[in-house]
Amino acid sequence: MSVPSYAEGNIVLTDEKKDDTIPDLPHGPLDVYRRKASFSWKDMVRFIDGEEIIAFKRHVWTTLENDPLFARQPGEDVPLERMRELTFHRCKQLFRYDFLTRDDMMQMPWKTTVLNDCLGMYDWSLGAKFFLNKGMFGATVANSGSQRHEKFVQSSESMMTFGCFALTELSHGSNTRAMRTTATYDPSTQEFVINSPDFEAAKFWVGNLGKTATHAVVFAQLYTPDGFCHGLHSFVVQVRDPKTLLSMPGVTVGDMGKKLGQNGLDNGFAMFHSVRIPRENLLNKTGDVTPEGKYVTPFKDPNKRFGASLGALSGGRVSISRMAVVNLKLATTIALRFSATRRQFGPKDDEEIPVLEYQLQQWRLIPYLAAVYALEHFSKTFFMNFVELQIGLMMRDKSDRQAELGREIHAISCSSKPLGSWTAQRGIQECREACGGHGYLAMNRLGDLRNDNDPNCTYEGDNNVLLQQTSNYLLSWLHHKQRGQGRIESPMESVNFLEDFSSILQSHFTAASMEECLDSAVPLAAYKWLVCFLLKQSEAKLAQEKAVAKGDFDARNNSQVYYCRSLSIVYIEHTVLQRFHDLVHDEDTPADLRPVLQRLAALYGLWSLSNHMAILYQGGYFSGKAPADFIQTAILHLCTVLKDDAVALVDVIAPPDFILNSPIGKADGELYKNLWATVMQGDKVLERAAWWKEFCSDKPAVGSLRANL
Amino acid sequence: MSVPSYAEGNIVLTDEKKDDTIPDLPHGPLDVYRRKASFSWKDMVRFIDGEEIIAFKRHVWTTLENDPLFARQPGEDVPLERMRELTFHRCKQLFRYDFLTRDDMMQMPWKTTVLNDCLGMYDWSLGAKFFLNKGMFGATVANSGSQRHEKFVQSSESMMTFGCFALTELSHGSNTRAMRTTATYDPSTQEFVINSPDFEAAKFWVGNLGKTATHAVVFAQLYTPDGFCHGLHSFVVQVRDPKTLLSMPGVTVGDMGKKLGQNGLDNGFAMFHSVRIPRENLLNKTGDVTPEGKYVTPFKDPNKRFGASLGALSGGRVSISRMAVVNLKLATTIALRFSATRRQFGPKDDEEIPVLEYQLQQWRLIPYLAAVYALEHFSKTFFMNFVELQIGLMMRDKSDRQAELGREIHAISCSSKPLGSWTAQRGIQECREACGGHGYLAMNRLGDLRNDNDPNCTYEGDNNVLLQQTSNYLLSWLHHKQRGQGRIESPMESVNFLEDFSSILQSHFTAASMEECLDSAVPLAAYKWLVCFLLKQSEAKLAQEKAVAKGDFDARNNSQVYYCRSLSIVYIEHTVLQRFHDLVHDEDTPADLRPVLQRLAALYGLWSLSNHMAILYQGGYFSGKAPADFIQTAILHLCTVLKDDAVALVDVIAPPDFILNSPIGKADGELYKNLWATVMQGDKVLERAAWWKEFCSDKPAVGSLRANL
Repeated sequence: MSVPSYAEGNIVLTDEKKDDTIPDLPHGPLDVYRRKASFSWKDMVRFIDGEEIIAFKRHVWTTLENDPLFARQPGEDVPLERMRELTFHRCKQLFRYDFLTRDDMMQMPWKTTVLNDCLGMYDWSLGAKFFLNKGMFGATVANSGSQRHEKFVQSSESMMTFGCFALTELSHGSNTRAMRTTATYDPSTQEFVINSPDFEAAKFWVGNLGKTATHAVVFAQLYTPDGFCHGLHSFVVQVRDPKTLLSMPGVTVGDMGKKLGQNGLDNGFAMFHSVRIPRENLLNKTGDVTPEGKYVTPFKDPNKRFGASLGALSGGRVSISRMAVVNLKLATTIALRFSATRRQFGPKDDEEIPVLEYQLQQWRLIPYLAAVYALEHFSKTFFMNFVELQIGLMMRDKSDRQAELGREIHAISCSSKPLGSWTAQRGIQECREACGGHGYLAMNRLGDLRNDNDPNCTYEGDNNVLLQQTSNYLLSWLHHKQRGQGRIESPMESVNFLEDFSSILQSHFTAASMEECLDSAVPLAAYKWLVCFLLKQSEAKLAQEKAVAKGDFDARNNSQVYYCRSLSIVYIEHTVLQRFHDLVHDEDTPADLRPVLQRLAALYGLWSLSNHMAILYQGGYFSGKAPADFIQTAILHLCTVLKDDAVALVDVIAPPDFILNSPIGKADGELYKNLWATVMQGDKVLERAAWWKEFCSDKPAVGSLRANL
Repeated sequence: MSVPSYAEGNIVLTDEKKDDTIPDLPHGPLDVYRRKASFSWKDMVRFIDGEEIIAFKRHVWTTLENDPLFARQPGEDVPLERMRELTFHRCKQLFRYDFLTRDDMMQMPWKTTVLNDCLGMYDWSLGAKFFLNKGMFGATVANSGSQRHEKFVQSSESMMTFGCFALTELSHGSNTRAMRTTATYDPSTQEFVINSPDFEAAKFWVGNLGKTATHAVVFAQLYTPDGFCHGLHSFVVQVRDPKTLLSMPGVTVGDMGKKLGQNGLDNGFAMFHSVRIPRENLLNKTGDVTPEGKYVTPFKDPNKRFGASLGALSGGRVSISRMAVVNLKLATTIALRFSATRRQFGPKDDEEIPVLEYQLQQWRLIPYLAAVYALEHFSKTFFMNFVELQIGLMMRDKSDRQAELGREIHAISCSSKPLGSWTAQRGIQECREACGGHGYLAMNRLGDLRNDNDPNCTYEGDNNVLLQQTSNYLLSWLHHKQRGQGRIESPMESVNFLEDFSSILQSHFTAASMEECLDSAVPLAAYKWLVCFLLKQSEAKLAQEKAVAKGDFDARNNSQVYYCRSLSIVYIEHTVLQRFHDLVHDEDTPADLRPVLQRLAALYGLWSLSNHMAILYQGGYFSGKAPADFIQTAILHLCTVLKDDAVALVDVIAPPDFILNSPIGKADGELYKNLWATVMQGDKVLERAAWWKEFCSDKPAVGSLRANL
């Protein structure tokens, strides 16, 4: 299995070869900045992606661009029904293109993510529709079921059927254990009876279920004939007839209607009125029911069984952490190209300068660009950790290391999803505002990005709820140490520094000048202190609350704000920064790219750290005026140094214009020409309104309906 | 002229009378919290609004609810064109209802704001369409023109014509002076020739211009026949024929297309190809051209003339500061009613508790509720200051006080708009996320609120650009003092405390316990220090930058981040908090309402202040761990104390269900029943998709279009 390697970027290519793999960008107003760049953007692309991924991305994007079915117009007003239809047709076409076979994915799993990136950059609804069938349905059935379920996977892969994943209910989301759908086994017919006790237990929010799905993985409480409940299990339930797309008897299935975004995807609901399914439709990896109705499981501990049956979910958060970065790539591309070409005011009345020249604009946008690079590296390496976990699962690895890797990936994904989705959400909003009114035009796409990114904060676990998982993990390590259970060491090494807990807590900020702060080592050291400090504080707070509270439940709830929640956030920021820091200080990283990457790492670290300065003072890591002054000055200095690289840095992460689909973000930088042309191509732009007569005749009699109060 | 008076709330009413003016709310799951409230929500409504406003709001809302033209369905998918049409029809109906006559407005100007609140709560597009004609066109013509322009106002008031306001161009927004549209006087015909040199100078973003407007106030550079440019002036230009709604010869006018929100409003563009208008169409208050072509003006200083000609804009920011609060009212109503009825997890497995009981949820939402109350009071009192300014203008008050009032209102509006719009934007996002997936359903309206509020950050001046005006104002007072030009005293007293600049800078945080921090006096004192500290720092930074920079332009730009920008923000937060603090400590404020209001003031102050804790440490106002600990603990304490009042506090600010238009936010608190009913009433919910055959037959041949790479 090949993994994406940064080393590939080092291959020396002739100039001819270079031009062939990565097309040049069109000349135009952005040339000024491109010429100022301190590095070759094509070298950076090769370093980050490598030749194989570059070619794959280009292939996917060119294919979409050349297929009229994927044609669209920036800002067009597409009705909901039409959006769903278009997305279905496009999704169907993806089966024909079959960009990734099972073999391709096994050979290079990273390509699955890259394909999702490529489709998502085009339209997240399309990527979601495709992968909900393939991944959430297909992979869940494959991973949670057994040989007898292979037929469901195969028919979904050929689009004979279409799958979805039904866990959430109308009245329960975060509290998955409280789901109320039941699956009661009837030995007389060897069937399960799937039932929704009432509409509050209707499955809700299920992607693809609104109009398309024929089969669903349904989570329900399993009851055996003895009346015993064995907890949540998953079942394959047919919800529609693939021959007619009409709902199956006893199934009420429908479309939830309009969402804030991703409206090409048909989210739906389903109620089950004693729907009978064959016994074999139970996905039986973690537990099965014999024909006679006896429950059998390889797990003795029901908690472990529950964890394992939800294990299939763990990949979702890894994906979402990545999807958020992709959104931020698009938004920063649009906003920075706009900023480099939009001119407003200047030192002289007759000479306006690009808004990117303003320190304020740099400070608003460039840290988000740095975040893109930090999170790009993180999401890629984290994905490889996740692949390692999955291989272990496939190989039935029962080692302690495998178990620890699972715990660590859970803890990291439960905080990297919040970090990624929130960073993207705030970043997109900042980009929207930084483009002024033009950012508010739908055609420029920042609205769609904001709306499409938004659910990343919510699905696969509400961000705030998830963060508790991460702090629990960290607290467990502290207790491990306190109980003398050995060194603090985890497979991904994200907690290893806690071994020095006490000495880190004694450390202080030592930089003596702004210049010293220009390396990511400074924020990294501060983050280590922050994690230790908040870990200690959280533990103390929990103990204090337990002493006065009614129980553990209250104690935990009253220790989130300012304590456990902050702890989880600084831990994941530390993890992301540590990885990026290591990369930019790695001698294998090309020397000509290292300076700009080092500046990005320092900026990302300092900028993230600046949100926690109050804690740094509160806990005594900072004292006096100098530390905050240094950090702030260093942030501004790095923004200024990076602004001449900003356009080249977005050229690296930007998809082709067709995919970006934003007139103000086009690679030629012809801001106004592109904007004006798109406006003029709109629907009935210059036509008078259909209702013109309603204005011209039938004038209202002012006050004719006025009431006397 | 009567002004809205809090004193009105003190009128003692019989219970029967009470029931008559403010209808009771329906019983349901929210009763639990309503019974826990520490105050009477109806008394609070009377205190805040007074009887006349209560009756007026109710009248407007009931009128809309009873008119089928205003009927709508939560979350429905309305095409752009239909949205524009509906908004036009509704706007036309407003002429018939004539809710406010000129006399009404003169008698109680506040009612104009209240009407805008009422319409905006229903749909901001409608309010905008109505007031852009009436206010931005009508009032601008009336205020910037003279008797000869009265006809334009009258015909717009009867909807014989329809007006708009055209300042922004495609390539210029913030830099208004750089507008490139020209108006060249031709004495031979006594006409102005209005011309757009190219498409980059097309008027852009003009509300109502897309489909409806027949007349525009157009800002253009005035040229006299001698070739001299007299700067930006405004002209009434006819853009469409009122008899046909077809564009006038030489005018290219059209619709900009879809925006992120407010799509009922038709924003448009216009290019002028040597369009001739009568000489009299120049709005001549600040300058006129004689028939022979001689420019005459009452102003000697062109800078003053420019300021005066843009003076008509100043009310916009006052309005927007208010509009943002209104959005936050709607969002917090939805999120808090949801939180009080949504149950998830609990101390026992079989007993789930409302998510409002979680400290984290309280901390996410209740501070925004406190912000609503603080900003409600601020926006109302600030409006009255603005009315005072306008009366002075009408009375041709040339006093120093009038001039100072203008400067102060400018400084405050340039920071209250950013504060209000950003607080609302962040608050709406937090509310969206706090409602989980259900917050992402369009029908629950949080998406529309976010999208409709968003432009408040941009129009009438980009927030970040505006903030510079405020810091300039504050720096000018510091220089005033340093030059020994007298005491620091302003009409609204927002800067008077700067008189104690030196002693305030010597002050420190003195509270010795969390309990001491439970009054707004503590954050208020800290804010006074913050303003002084950042004022001093900003001045020093500017001086330092001037010493090394190429010029004032660069020096100013390099002193925004962490200095002038932060200064403007703490100044406006101080102003808002000071006013709310004064209100809640006023003995005329009803005694039974004061405790809850005091808690809201303290929470708003501490929560806002907590964003600046790093500066408080940096500058030495805070030292050691205790201050931050006290502030944080006090915030959490206040959230907990206020959570039982939260439902009653939103009952005070919530409009009727019909206006709120959000199933999860309805007053009866029947969260799931309302949500489910609305889903089931959607369009074609249970029907199969029109494209079902495309799924059932014509299956894709997997890989048939696969390319060999």
